[in-house]
Amino acid sequence: MSDTDAPTVTAAALAIGDELLSGRTKDKNIGHLAEMLTAAGITLEEVRIVPDEQQRIVEALNALRRRYDYVFTSGGIGPTHDDITADAVAAAFGVPCDYDSEALTLLARHYAERNLEFTPARRRMARMPVGSRHIDNPVSRAPGFIIGNVHVMAGVPSVFQAMLDNVLPTLRTGARLLSDKVPCPFGEGDIGDPLTVIAKANPDVNIGSYPRFSGEGFSTEIVIRGRDGDAVAAAKQEIEAMLADIEYSLGAAAD
Amino acid sequence: MSDTDAPTVTAAALAIGDELLSGRTKDKNIGHLAEMLTAAGITLEEVRIVPDEQQRIVEALNALRRRYDYVFTSGGIGPTHDDITADAVAAAFGVPCDYDSEALTLLARHYAERNLEFTPARRRMARMPVGSRHIDNPVSRAPGFIIGNVHVMAGVPSVFQAMLDNVLPTLRTGARLLSDKVPCPFGEGDIGDPLTVIAKANPDVNIGSYPRFSGEGFSTEIVIRGRDGDAVAAAKQEIEAMLADIEYSLGAAAD
Repeated sequence: MSDTDAPTVTAAALAIGDELLSGRTKDKNIGHLAEMLTAAGITLEEVRIVPDEQQRIVEALNALRRRYDYVFTSGGIGPTHDDITADAVAAAFGVPCDYDSEALTLLARHYAERNLEFTPARRRMARMPVGSRHIDNPVSRAPGFIIGNVHVMAGVPSVFQAMLDNVLPTLRTGARLLSDKVPCPFGEGDIGDPLTVIAKANPDVNIGSYPRFSGEGFSTEIVIRGRDGDAVAAAKQEIEAMLADIEYSLGAAAD
Repeated sequence: MSDTDAPTVTAAALAIGDELLSGRTKDKNIGHLAEMLTAAGITLEEVRIVPDEQQRIVEALNALRRRYDYVFTSGGIGPTHDDITADAVAAAFGVPCDYDSEALTLLARHYAERNLEFTPARRRMARMPVGSRHIDNPVSRAPGFIIGNVHVMAGVPSVFQAMLDNVLPTLRTGARLLSDKVPCPFGEGDIGDPLTVIAKANPDVNIGSYPRFSGEGFSTEIVIRGRDGDAVAAAKQEIEAMLADIEYSLGAAAD
């Protein structure tokens, strides 16, 4: 079944945090978001990582939110002085950043239940651009928020993932991208020429080849993506036939 | 010893590849680059990930190379039809992309030694923007290249890392950023207010706090960064004293 008539829905990710740029923290949210969006039929088209500096966040956010259907941010919405994402997002939209009464109520109850003081730092987590809607946080309660097409989520992976789970069902999705793959024991140098011929002959699919280096030599994974299942299957058959030819011409299977 | 007089050297990373945006491949190069640059005294200030589309690569590369001292790219320099980074980089610089005679010689010898045919696909890997210098690739021979302030490297992590090892000693470096950290058994909500006071009182350092969620509750790692070792040590002492106060006021160490 072809699904090529459904519109494409595009997205960008903006990961915020000095720790990602210093190498202290290895980002885990971008890869997860990429996988979840792809599965949902939303095309992640760009990612940026910027430091905890208001002007840099504003600039990147304004570039991305104007260009793509959705933007997803991670990081900088905690209770400490270096958590400046809410202020920066408000500045990008030109609206005030203020304490949200519903979030204050939610957090006051959360900390009261735990006999924890509702400190000014914790109150900071109730601040958001005026006009935002909440993203529920089942892990640690302090909500993310949505303003315009921008979804602002936590940087801690378990919280980011829980927030994304809450957001995904609310998004408009496009034609789901189908994909299939063919493992290939040969390096890209062996298959590059015939694969180029197949890619040109199959304009309705996108064929990617991804080398892997074992320490001994290269192998390749060939991935076929498209919105039309028949076109993906046809390209896959051609690739498998091509690999059989190479194997035959080399006189033996690769080790 | 203060090292604050040395100039800051800035960098950006541009990771290229549809597979990073679809979630098929989880990027490993950005985190590695971030760590290596930080250790070398170069500040990674921005990261972008873009698909294998010439216009998108050109646009991102031109934005980044004009803004930062160095740009490091990963991905898209292999032998297959979807490897378009060399062409895109040439287009960004407005120079032709052509077969480099030195690279052709190198690769011809490499494949001859292995009794492998030097196919058109493999010859593609000798193409680079006219005027580029090579980045040696000890892993699989096909070189990366340098043009202007842009360093173009492979996407396969082992090759990227080997190329980066060759590039790092050639770079101008700035004041090395010193950092120290204090593990903190309390969540950010407990420390946010006093930590803000300490951060304001220590303008020569950058204090970051990074929550970790165990499933039971949050703990925090507090990181102090600066170019002046005395200032970092002074801030660290204040933070440790602050944590001791909290522990005392809670009547016991956190579990």
